[in-house]
Amino acid sequence: MRLTLDRDRFVETMKAQAQIGGTAGGGLHRLALSDADKQVRDWFLEQLEAADLSVRIDEFGNMFGRREGTDPNAAPVLIGSHLDSQPYGGIYDGPLGVISALECIRTLDDEGIETKHPIEIVNWTNEEGSRFQPAMQGSGVWAGVHDLDEEYAKTDTDGETFEAELERIGYKGDHPAEPHEAYEAYLELHVEQGPYLERAGKDVGIVTGVVGFSWGEITYHGEADHSGPTPMDSRSDALVAAAETIGEIRAIPGELGERTVGTTGYIDAKPNSINVIPEEVTFTWDFRDPEDEVVERAVNRVLKEAEAAAEREGVEWEYEERMRASSVEFADRCVDAVERAAADLGYDGMRLVSGAGHDATHMAEVCDTSMVFAVSEGGKSHNEAEYTSWDDCYAAANTIANAAVELAECE
Amino acid sequence: MRLTLDRDRFVETMKAQAQIGGTAGGGLHRLALSDADKQVRDWFLEQLEAADLSVRIDEFGNMFGRREGTDPNAAPVLIGSHLDSQPYGGIYDGPLGVISALECIRTLDDEGIETKHPIEIVNWTNEEGSRFQPAMQGSGVWAGVHDLDEEYAKTDTDGETFEAELERIGYKGDHPAEPHEAYEAYLELHVEQGPYLERAGKDVGIVTGVVGFSWGEITYHGEADHSGPTPMDSRSDALVAAAETIGEIRAIPGELGERTVGTTGYIDAKPNSINVIPEEVTFTWDFRDPEDEVVERAVNRVLKEAEAAAEREGVEWEYEERMRASSVEFADRCVDAVERAAADLGYDGMRLVSGAGHDATHMAEVCDTSMVFAVSEGGKSHNEAEYTSWDDCYAAANTIANAAVELAECE
Repeated sequence: MRLTLDRDRFVETMKAQAQIGGTAGGGLHRLALSDADKQVRDWFLEQLEAADLSVRIDEFGNMFGRREGTDPNAAPVLIGSHLDSQPYGGIYDGPLGVISALECIRTLDDEGIETKHPIEIVNWTNEEGSRFQPAMQGSGVWAGVHDLDEEYAKTDTDGETFEAELERIGYKGDHPAEPHEAYEAYLELHVEQGPYLERAGKDVGIVTGVVGFSWGEITYHGEADHSGPTPMDSRSDALVAAAETIGEIRAIPGELGERTVGTTGYIDAKPNSINVIPEEVTFTWDFRDPEDEVVERAVNRVLKEAEAAAEREGVEWEYEERMRASSVEFADRCVDAVERAAADLGYDGMRLVSGAGHDATHMAEVCDTSMVFAVSEGGKSHNEAEYTSWDDCYAAANTIANAAVELAECE
Repeated sequence: MRLTLDRDRFVETMKAQAQIGGTAGGGLHRLALSDADKQVRDWFLEQLEAADLSVRIDEFGNMFGRREGTDPNAAPVLIGSHLDSQPYGGIYDGPLGVISALECIRTLDDEGIETKHPIEIVNWTNEEGSRFQPAMQGSGVWAGVHDLDEEYAKTDTDGETFEAELERIGYKGDHPAEPHEAYEAYLELHVEQGPYLERAGKDVGIVTGVVGFSWGEITYHGEADHSGPTPMDSRSDALVAAAETIGEIRAIPGELGERTVGTTGYIDAKPNSINVIPEEVTFTWDFRDPEDEVVERAVNRVLKEAEAAAEREGVEWEYEERMRASSVEFADRCVDAVERAAADLGYDGMRLVSGAGHDATHMAEVCDTSMVFAVSEGGKSHNEAEYTSWDDCYAAANTIANAAVELAECE
């Protein structure tokens, strides 16, 4: 049995969601728990109700729609992603995964197909982590990785708490934010956010897992002297030490794995004045690799380089590893289901490891999981220029629908 | 004739000014036109009146006290500095120059010495440039380098204008902010803010001029991609390019002059998020040297290095030179007068070029000028840990007093 989604309706639904919080630049401004997020949730709720799904909204705002299976004892297959966006994100990102899940259900209804297992579709709260940290917050709470009350207390830059904002938009539901039963599997479609599929000329990505990563912060403490009268040989310049180390963070991946990446995304200098030698500079590292052991080596290496730079510049230093996440390996039966679906549909699929975290990262703690990646043109992500052709969106959507239906077992 | 200041009264007066806006850390928080600045001005006004000087406050808040000479046609010798401070500055810095000038007048009165030329002492408004930019604002307006109305309109970070704040503290005077007559000479005592005198084991600095400098800003424009899925070979990382160039700004002086310095004091990265490749990074250069031609070579060199870094990282770039100041050579007759005064007093003096700008920089446009430097321990400046021993303060104060008296010609 092969499921074929209604391409026109699918594209129309994608365009409909893109209207909500749409930007002049053709992207989305739909931060978690904002007015735009409320609006897209209201719209999504209408779609769930129109599809006759039984709706649950949990106490963390995660939204579920359930289509019953024929076996009352069978565990549900969950599919979905997130509808929130970065401050100036693209229209595909998470929404593509949610709309594909909706379209899968609609098509099953159209064709009158029943599955043994229930199928649930989900919109996770705050995947992006732009307004409230951390990212993947809703799925993290639901999977038991984060504590509900701690996450409720998180504040945005205006000092508003997560809980108050969730209540304000009317999406603090009654259901506990946890699995209410065992789950058969979780599948998620997301745009790749990298260039590997496009480079290889593939149609669709079969995601075998997620890279492990380390996030850390280094601070150098130098001396704030006047930039004019202080000779070069009697300076303790925190920014020079930071610049050297940032160069090393760029260079370290080249000596490790093929998929290793190293990034400094954040830097803050004090007093940050043109004619004062920087006294204190804080900056970050972000190392990722499919092998946890490679991440470990990158971290050891940057600490050695940081120490050497501190010594050369005569500054004190300290560091803190802020987060370490092990790599995730998805369950073979789910990965294989995705691969079979792609092949059955005639798509040229490629196995790859996700370089970014997704809600699926947390879901892999709960049940067997896999993901489908849609081709990202130029690998652009988290900005308005993100682009996936409707052909590529449709290929990925058909793939996840067929994989889900295989796992849910048609009658 | 040799003038010897009253050491106890001099030290007491230094301590008295240090009480006003004094910090728990033993420094000063006396930003231009703040309440603390008003308080120290009120106190200084009392000292001028107690010394029977004729007081002028000009429309930019510069405060003058005049002691007449015996020749009604002789041009005045002006001595002074500034009483304002950095946010957390030291107690010596500019105040040492103002108090020394006051003490010079008091001692002339004590000894009943008359000079042919009038002697004026001055407290320049806003030398530091911490609250309102630029630095050396009051002397710059007075010397005709800056336009009065443009400087009136400058705002602090709270949006208060310079003019409103000057009126609020009651120091917008009636006199035009310009030389009302020809000036015979200007002398200024300031702490060195560098380690050269201490390193050489000298008592006092004879300042022959001020280094030239260039201030500029470079901006790299890269691409804001996700730090996880974006391979190292397809990144345009604005921060990596900036880090390389900051390293060059550190290295360039080593290849030019002995006194060349190069500093990046300011950096700003966007979006400045741990897991996003930096899209736009702006940072500054500050190059100084006694030779203008060396400053020119440093600027040419950094632009070449910036271009190379941009090419390596695949980012766009632009730059703006924000300020270029030629080096200043002080008048021989004033420098010689300072040198003679130090030698006559038995102090071990050393000629040097100032690495920092001072009000004397602008005054050199108006009349013959020189400066005296007091030893800075460890060269620390613009922070609470700034320190000059009372012996070194006193040596410098006696030096400037005697140089001033020579230029003003005792009867």
